[in-house]
Amino acid sequence: MELLEVLKGYKELIDNNLCHFIPQDVPENLAKSMEYSLKAGGKRIRPLLLLLVCDHYKISREISLPLALSIEYIHTYSLIHDDLPSMDDDDYRRGKLTNHKVFGEGMAILAGDALLTQAFNIISEIKNLSADKKIKVISILSEAAGPSGMIKGQVLDLENEGKILTEEELKEIHINKTGKLLLAPLKMAAEICDLKDEEKKALEKYGESLGLTFQITDDILDICGNFQDMGKLSGSDEKLQKATYVSIKGLEKAKELAQYYAQLGVEALSEGNLQIPYLKEILTYLLTRKG
Amino acid sequence: MELLEVLKGYKELIDNNLCHFIPQDVPENLAKSMEYSLKAGGKRIRPLLLLLVCDHYKISREISLPLALSIEYIHTYSLIHDDLPSMDDDDYRRGKLTNHKVFGEGMAILAGDALLTQAFNIISEIKNLSADKKIKVISILSEAAGPSGMIKGQVLDLENEGKILTEEELKEIHINKTGKLLLAPLKMAAEICDLKDEEKKALEKYGESLGLTFQITDDILDICGNFQDMGKLSGSDEKLQKATYVSIKGLEKAKELAQYYAQLGVEALSEGNLQIPYLKEILTYLLTRKG
Repeated sequence: MELLEVLKGYKELIDNNLCHFIPQDVPENLAKSMEYSLKAGGKRIRPLLLLLVCDHYKISREISLPLALSIEYIHTYSLIHDDLPSMDDDDYRRGKLTNHKVFGEGMAILAGDALLTQAFNIISEIKNLSADKKIKVISILSEAAGPSGMIKGQVLDLENEGKILTEEELKEIHINKTGKLLLAPLKMAAEICDLKDEEKKALEKYGESLGLTFQITDDILDICGNFQDMGKLSGSDEKLQKATYVSIKGLEKAKELAQYYAQLGVEALSEGNLQIPYLKEILTYLLTRKG
Repeated sequence: MELLEVLKGYKELIDNNLCHFIPQDVPENLAKSMEYSLKAGGKRIRPLLLLLVCDHYKISREISLPLALSIEYIHTYSLIHDDLPSMDDDDYRRGKLTNHKVFGEGMAILAGDALLTQAFNIISEIKNLSADKKIKVISILSEAAGPSGMIKGQVLDLENEGKILTEEELKEIHINKTGKLLLAPLKMAAEICDLKDEEKKALEKYGESLGLTFQITDDILDICGNFQDMGKLSGSDEKLQKATYVSIKGLEKAKELAQYYAQLGVEALSEGNLQIPYLKEILTYLLTRKG
């Protein structure tokens, strides 16, 4: 099957189930605010990565789907908080008004808090998965999203606004801010599927390369994309005087670097002899995406 | 031993260990912001409740202390976010500037997010506790702190500012906003200590009564306390036109109601034949506290 058709199928599966894990007994406006951002679209690449690996190793969707969605809950919370006036101060995200522009800042903060907390509740309530495995994935996810992972990246990003960065400093921000939560679904899937140590290592190397490919192409799109494809005004990083791969290395060198990391990802898959469908193709897709 | 001495001992134990669970690899300012609020004091009643129960049933501190502290991490995050300008907009908490007044709004939001995420990481990493028990307490804690628990209470609180509430509506806010996270340590301890069903039920009833006693006395102190004892300007609820037990029922009736719930808590302990030291005395302490 064509990659885009496969991606579409997974995206539908994810979109159709995302809101099922909001508890019943939630105030109406809070539920609306959580749903608004969960339904705001996006590529769903994090849950997709977990599902691709788990499907290949024949893990029941009863287990893999809630796991995949828990990561998207955390990703969604991070976007809501990142868009706040005291952070990136964005009015639009994926072509829609950001959460706080619709529901107000207080509710947006609470909706983010709720999605983050609920992510761990979702995992704790999965049926037919051993407590041992649940604890392993909670440990991976909380570390990836926590103060030495994604939040570290957010802090570095916030503190370095307007500063001139080296490529190494920028890489440090990206590895934490987006890389670790892109890696988490692969590490979680590796635990769930009982991969061998060398397979785990290869999958991690793939995930790290994918994270950097993703981020560099994001920087390129931020300069070159248009509102329709990106859903936000391009040049918004420039507005905040954020260092990007494009501002540090120039457009052509940034494109080369994205290709380099994509190639590293492909190599990692061969090294680990991992035959998981579509992982390789996703790298090419990231390189050529328009939004 | 006198209750106050016991409380002091536990408070020292908690205070001395709270910051040990911030990971090493955290940006300096983020660590400072997390520590600032963790060290800002407070009665430490939530971790205290868990420790009192676990100590009575001879659970190792290697297990009970991180569990107790994880709850205080969540409580601390909730205070940081609750004080933000878009929420209660408080400049002082426990006599010190609030987190965002010192570190800025962006960092305060991230420090809160970090404490919340880290709470679940702390539990996942406890040594010598079965994965099964860890998942049970994560389930309890994430539900208590989540969108049908504490965050529900925050939302109701935010939405009802300036409105005239019935006693029932106010009770609904308090049960969620403060009650459920005061109940969580008791429910978590009951799981860890393998209490019988009727003992669990009694401990929950005690916890619910304690939560209401706590909240009503807090409302009374908000009117009658002074800055030195309370660490915040009294009358701050009035400033935000928040309904309180005092504004709805008057001071005398509110005092009677606090005594009524404290009595219910004492009865619950006898009904369950729970001989856990100091639980009864804490109710009296709450009734007579000055800050």
